[in-house]
Amino acid sequence: MALIVQKYGGTSLGSTERIIAVAEKVMATRAQGHNVVVVVSAMSGETNRLVALAKSVAESPKAREFDVLLATGEQVTISLLSMALSARKCPARSYTGAQVHILTDSAHTKARILEIDDQRIYADLVQGIVVVVAGFQGIDTEGNITTLGRGGSDTTAVALAAALKADECQIYTDVDGVYTTDPRVVSQARRLEKICFEEMLEMASLGSKVLQIRAVEFASKYNVPIRVLSSFKEGPGTLIAPEDETMEKALISGIAFNRDEAKLTLLGVPDKPGIAYHILGQIADANIEVDMIIQNIGADGTTDFTFTVHHNDYKKALDILHDIAKELGVREVQGDVSIVKISLVGVGMRSHAGIASTMFKALADEGINIQMISTSEIKISVVVHEKYLELGVRALHAAFNLDKAAI
Amino acid sequence: MALIVQKYGGTSLGSTERIIAVAEKVMATRAQGHNVVVVVSAMSGETNRLVALAKSVAESPKAREFDVLLATGEQVTISLLSMALSARKCPARSYTGAQVHILTDSAHTKARILEIDDQRIYADLVQGIVVVVAGFQGIDTEGNITTLGRGGSDTTAVALAAALKADECQIYTDVDGVYTTDPRVVSQARRLEKICFEEMLEMASLGSKVLQIRAVEFASKYNVPIRVLSSFKEGPGTLIAPEDETMEKALISGIAFNRDEAKLTLLGVPDKPGIAYHILGQIADANIEVDMIIQNIGADGTTDFTFTVHHNDYKKALDILHDIAKELGVREVQGDVSIVKISLVGVGMRSHAGIASTMFKALADEGINIQMISTSEIKISVVVHEKYLELGVRALHAAFNLDKAAI
Repeated sequence: MALIVQKYGGTSLGSTERIIAVAEKVMATRAQGHNVVVVVSAMSGETNRLVALAKSVAESPKAREFDVLLATGEQVTISLLSMALSARKCPARSYTGAQVHILTDSAHTKARILEIDDQRIYADLVQGIVVVVAGFQGIDTEGNITTLGRGGSDTTAVALAAALKADECQIYTDVDGVYTTDPRVVSQARRLEKICFEEMLEMASLGSKVLQIRAVEFASKYNVPIRVLSSFKEGPGTLIAPEDETMEKALISGIAFNRDEAKLTLLGVPDKPGIAYHILGQIADANIEVDMIIQNIGADGTTDFTFTVHHNDYKKALDILHDIAKELGVREVQGDVSIVKISLVGVGMRSHAGIASTMFKALADEGINIQMISTSEIKISVVVHEKYLELGVRALHAAFNLDKAAI
Repeated sequence: MALIVQKYGGTSLGSTERIIAVAEKVMATRAQGHNVVVVVSAMSGETNRLVALAKSVAESPKAREFDVLLATGEQVTISLLSMALSARKCPARSYTGAQVHILTDSAHTKARILEIDDQRIYADLVQGIVVVVAGFQGIDTEGNITTLGRGGSDTTAVALAAALKADECQIYTDVDGVYTTDPRVVSQARRLEKICFEEMLEMASLGSKVLQIRAVEFASKYNVPIRVLSSFKEGPGTLIAPEDETMEKALISGIAFNRDEAKLTLLGVPDKPGIAYHILGQIADANIEVDMIIQNIGADGTTDFTFTVHHNDYKKALDILHDIAKELGVREVQGDVSIVKISLVGVGMRSHAGIASTMFKALADEGINIQMISTSEIKISVVVHEKYLELGVRALHAAFNLDKAAI
């Protein structure tokens, strides 16, 4: 007998038929003798419907009221799921974020969880009651309703699992696990049995949109094992857990990629101390997030400075760079939106030399020109022309034998 | 400068355009220098949508969860109205029932208000903030979400007005006041300037569906003046207030009628003590509400016993009577659904003789046969065949000159 937190996303709850199917899944887990806490998102489509309502009464709706509005989405699903369970003779009780005192800071629409009242939940669990909690929402110290931002239900589930010291936090979604890479790009992509938190963080932030990054960070901090599973297909899913001895002995766990970046370059920047800060400070002031940063010293006492930003910020960043260029006497400003980033991720590369050269050789063999390189302890990222995305990812997937599980 | 509680029903909030129109009405009241607390219902249609969702996951949804579900309806409107107000530079804050601690008993789907926390509301009002409160909902001492039953938003508004000692509780609806009778039946029906609580209670319970009975009871108990107004049409509406000297000096305020009753009769009941209890006890045990009751002693030591119930309970009540008839040796059981009840209402009749005879003469002049009569201090009700409804109401409206205001 274990304590399991299960989280179901909007697609899994997209209709009343699906809500009933979720009730049956919950009951099956309970029939195995487990205590179950369920965290739910709003029914798919509901959040968009509510946002449209808000936009039609106010151009920029007040954040406090926006949270009051959005929080109704999960309140609907907690009640429907609890009804469905009770009607099938499975005792269940719903709780809003406020009711189980999911205390957050007051940053409306992107609040962070500070504390959860576990007593009420324990009291129900010992009576054999399934506890159904609204994801994505909480209250601040003033009793105002807050929401955690997109994908916040994952964070609620992990935070609850941490607070309750649950044995496992199961995230039900529309994919059946974490893959070595996107199966739409590489048909031989393989589901991973297990992946460690650090790898998952790199995979998630690099575009494998299975799990909310914040939820993985939370899980990593409190050592909560997460299992990603499909709502629609039976299977063991992928376990995301602390790195340990039993972890697959793979060099590389997966290949992530990101099509949403754009590259900006300043050529011939006078090489003086404080230049990087001068440039990136103004970019940061404009609320633009920077991903990769590379600086090379040129031959003539000038330097070339390159970084990547999200597509959506490209135009704004370019305008800022043109201003800076005039100011500093920079030779040239270049920009390129036709790029992709491809990243190898794996804790195995810590203790193995030669990963990078294998990577670069595989790309060179396909005639793919590398525009930028950036490395961290457990990942190597390259920027290439976007036309090489599929070719590059497939070449790397084959070069590292990712279609076969490590022994 | 006064403190005004305004309540807007679902039709007044049926679209985002209408919500904006309500925002403008609220702002107009505030522009006159008043403090405003607004109570809102769910958007029209929303409650039905939620009920349909519930019914599709559970045949008889748990009452606790049903309340969690339904409470989202008003949570949507409080947030949208507050957004609409804020966007128009009118400071506003929304509160759910739980947030202003509308404490109720635990009778889910039909809870009663016990207490309201006025401190948070006062704190906003003194800062010039419009306070927008969700009608229809509260919490019990355990923190469970409760709802007050159909029309409960009226009760919330009156309870808030009482707690805050408001100067007036304005109920905005789709009619522009309380009429002497239904204008669809009598085209000369006249809007009343003022009516007292007792009269309104008789009018409401008899089928003039302007205001929730419970809200009027509450207002009467705490002496809260209510004004019924139209959301769609300017006008002074009807003031519902304690009986006073300035009240119109009318004998009769209005004529109510009810098409939803059915009549049941036991003929030849052995006349013994406890017979009425024996019959009505079993009816009550079956959760059937009884309206009029009449018992006549017959010539042969037996009695005839007649009462009325709601149409929906007619079949069930008839079955019970057939069982009782066998048991007691009753001669005959009769039932009739083709009846209507017509009632004269007016505090004036307390001090005036001859009202009843004027009423009976007016009906007799039209050849209308009276089947049952029942009287109270401020009303006289008759049951007649349903085909006489319009004729009877018009005859009485004319007989008492209700188309002309008293001087």
